[in-house]
Parts: sequence; structure tokens; C-alpha cells
Amino acid sequence: MKNSEDAYGQTLLAQYNHRTPTAEIIERDDNYIDTGSDPGLYFSEYDEWSPLERRVIEFAKGRILDVGCGAGRHALYLQQKSFDVTGIDNSPGAIKVCKLRGLKKALVRPISEIDKFKPNSFDTIQMFGNNFGLFGSFETARLILKKFARITAPDAQIIAQSRNPYQTIEPEHLAYLRLNRRRGRMSGQLRIRARFGKTIGEWFDYLFVSPEEMQNILKDTDWQIKEFIEPEAASYFAIINKKLINKIYCFRTLNVHQIIKRPAVE
Amino acid sequence: MKNSEDAYGQTLLAQYNHRTPTAEIIERDDNYIDTGSDPGLYFSEYDEWSPLERRVIEFAKGRILDVGCGAGRHALYLQQKSFDVTGIDNSPGAIKVCKLRGLKKALVRPISEIDKFKPNSFDTIQMFGNNFGLFGSFETARLILKKFARITAPDAQIIAQSRNPYQTIEPEHLAYLRLNRRRGRMSGQLRIRARFGKTIGEWFDYLFVSPEEMQNILKDTDWQIKEFIEPEAASYFAIINKKLINKIYCFRTLNVHQIIKRPAVE
Repeated sequence: MKNSEDAYGQTLLAQYNHRTPTAEIIERDDNYIDTGSDPGLYFSEYDEWSPLERRVIEFAKGRILDVGCGAGRHALYLQQKSFDVTGIDNSPGAIKVCKLRGLKKALVRPISEIDKFKPNSFDTIQMFGNNFGLFGSFETARLILKKFARITAPDAQIIAQSRNPYQTIEPEHLAYLRLNRRRGRMSGQLRIRARFGKTIGEWFDYLFVSPEEMQNILKDTDWQIKEFIEPEAASYFAIINKKLINKIYCFRTLNVHQIIKRPAVE
Repeated sequence: MKNSEDAYGQTLLAQYNHRTPTAEIIERDDNYIDTGSDPGLYFSEYDEWSPLERRVIEFAKGRILDVGCGAGRHALYLQQKSFDVTGIDNSPGAIKVCKLRGLKKALVRPISEIDKFKPNSFDTIQMFGNNFGLFGSFETARLILKKFARITAPDAQIIAQSRNPYQTIEPEHLAYLRLNRRRGRMSGQLRIRARFGKTIGEWFDYLFVSPEEMQNILKDTDWQIKEFIEPEAASYFAIINKKLINKIYCFRTLNVHQIIKRPAVE
């Protein structure tokens, strides 16, 4: 992402520099506009997180990749707990903020280029803050899930948060879900862009899915739901495990030591 | 203003209905976008006002017209203090909120139609919340000041707040001031519109002036500065008095009782 399009990163930088909560402004392609998250959310400390977030972060294990790490609130917490954690974001401004705040491993990298990491680099991939949405669409999700398989250990997991798009009574949101279905998109496939000052971000797809839709996306991939956490909530988590059935895949990507330690079983 | 364009009013209604602070979103015609005021500001209670606002509200006297009354925070305070106060706003949503909150005299009326009030209806016209800006431009200000003279008592006052547009170091704001001068507008003549959800407000001019520019606007009108309050502040107040020199005007607009009570003197 070019700096001149990094409205999201500039929002985070403004907040970092001025030490005041800044609301992000998000436009949807039906002209709907709103302030995206609670001002200050991206910089919230562990004590300010929701009980759900605090519960789910406990699942983090091994070498962790935080996809769409924002201002680094989760990555910094895990780094402080001595985890080996890497944060990536396609926003140069976000990564700048992460580094300024002390995150040691922080990279500007879009999710589409996730396969630049070496095979078996991570044990946990986390997508907090509804960042399952970064998959963008059904097709892209399945493409990236393959890349996720490549860069992770055989017993890796994804910890993902999504928002259930059907949990709304707002007429304008319900109309948007219908519009999406009419134009052959998933209901919750939001086409949005960030705005900050005169900076207008590029349009991109951010995918909200129900637990059932998430199941569908994972079908016949290398990944499967281990458990949903509060699936009935508007914003819920999924613990997604790598399937251990693909022996050929494992032999190709693991070194001998790992195969001995963690045999691939059916 | 049509309801379908009343983004500002919808912002206030949403906040009133959901009881949560809502940020207003304002776009400027150079594509600059920002959240306009502190979320919750329009609903702030006396104790939450700035010390400056609390000091200036003490100037209110007699029959009061609150121009651009928003959610009615000043008008409701004065009504509670037993003042005869009328709030007007061109936003139907704002006036709906004022009425829901208990403001007895609240009218949908744009400042351009201020002369629908009868002569000598008010002793104080207040333009809090930088609402000197509602004058829009140099020419319109002078036109409306004439109407203000018509609808007020001979010893009436205007209590106006403005923001000094030159008190900024933001390059994007400084560039906008230059753009305005190049296109023959006052530096602080902002062309803006409100947005809320899918509702896009009409573009309108909102005028920020320095104390010197305010003096210039008032020159050779029926009004003159009595005093500035914190003129060196980014957002300052002016107490503006009606000149008492125009006898012919007074005779035309006052009834005999008032002329006897308050003789027009040179």
C-alpha cells in the first residue's frame, strides 16, 4: 500500500502522536459511512480488552503470526509474555506504529504475500479484531488458507475472529447484504475503504461470515474448525486446526526431526 | 432541509436514541474528512461545558434566540433557568431531538429565514458552538445582520462564538485557507457537508473568522463589538451590541411604549 493511500495507518499514527483516541472513518461502496471502531480500541491494553478476547488469547502457542496486527495491541502483549510473535499489516503506518511501540518483529506485508514466509514458520496464526475478514472473499480465503498451510507447522492453528453479518436489525445493513447476494458476492463481503484527512484508501473487500459460512469456506481445505467460542455472539471466535491427514504434504514440508516428533496420523 | 439530506440531524437522533456518544462526520470540499466535534458534545450538560462557555452564558438576558441550537444544550439550560428561549435549527432532526428533550420553543428554521420572526422579538441572539459560522460568507453575514436588527430590541446583543482559522499549523488546513483566497472566498469560508450512514448532507458554507475579520464584517452595520472574550484563543467569543444611533430605524420598528422606556440616543 502506498503511503498516499494509507488512511488507516495515518489514523493510527495520528492517535499515536497526539495520544488522543481517534475515530477511524470507513466508507462502504453503497455510500454508507461510519466511524469504524471505538476510538482508542487499536491501542487498548489487556485490561481494556473484552473478556472474550482475554479468554481467547490464552490459545496462542509457539511461534505466532498476527495477521493485520494494526497498532500491535495483541502482538505486544504476547511479546511481553515472551512469545515469539511476528506482526504483519499491509499498512505502512500501522507497522510504523508497531515499531515505535516496541514490537520487534513487524513487517509491512499484505495477506496475499503471506507465502513469502518460509515453510513451517509458525504454530499459530491469529486474526483478531474480526480479521478473518482479511480473507476478503470465498475464493481468496481458500487460496490464502493453502498458503497458511505451507508456512505453518503440521499441528498449527488459526485463531480467528469474525462478525456474523446477519446479526443486525439495521435496515441499511440488511439492504447491503441483499445487494451483495444480488451481485454474486457473499452477504457479508463488505467493499470498504478508509478515509483520514484528505487521504482516501483503496477499496478492498472485508469478509464478515456466520459460523456456518466459515465452515463452508474451510470445507476440503487443510483446515477444520476445532471449536467456536461464543458462536451465537455478533462477533465470535473460531479455533481452527490444521488437518493431520495429508501425509504427502507433511513429508514435503517437514524436516525429519519434526516428522519423528509429530507423526502425521489419519 | 429535507429529511433525506439531514445527516446532522440523524447523527443527533442516533445519539439520542442509543444514548451513546456518536461522532459526527464532516467532509470539506477538498476531500478532507474528519469527525467534527467530540462525540457527545452536543448533549453535554452545564458541568461538562468549557469554563469559557460557562462564563459567556452569563451574558444571556431577556428573550433569547439560540441560532443553530443543535440538540439544545444551551437552550435547555437557559429554559431551566426560567429564560424565555427559542431554539432554531435548519435540521429537522435536531429540532426533533430538542423537543424530545423538553425544549418548549423549538423551530425548524434556517438562519436565512430569520426575518419570519416579528420585529423586536428578542433581546439576545446567541450563536454558540462556533455558530457565527452560520453566516456563511461576508455578504450573507451582512444581509442576515440586517434581519437580526429587525427582529431584536433596540438594546439587543449577539453572543457569538467563532473559530480563528489562522490558528492552525496543519499543512492541509493552511493549504485550504490559501485555496479559498485564490477562489475569492474568505480564508475560513469552509464548504462542508455532514454525512451519516447513507445520508449525505447538502454542501453549505460555514465561516470561521479571526476577531479582525469579524470587526470588518460588522463595519457599517447595525452592530458593533462590545468586547471579545479570549480573542487570542482558537475558539473565542464576541459580545456584539446593537448600535443605538439610528433613530429613524428605531422609530420605524419600536412601539411607543418601548421608545419611552428605552429612548434611542446618540
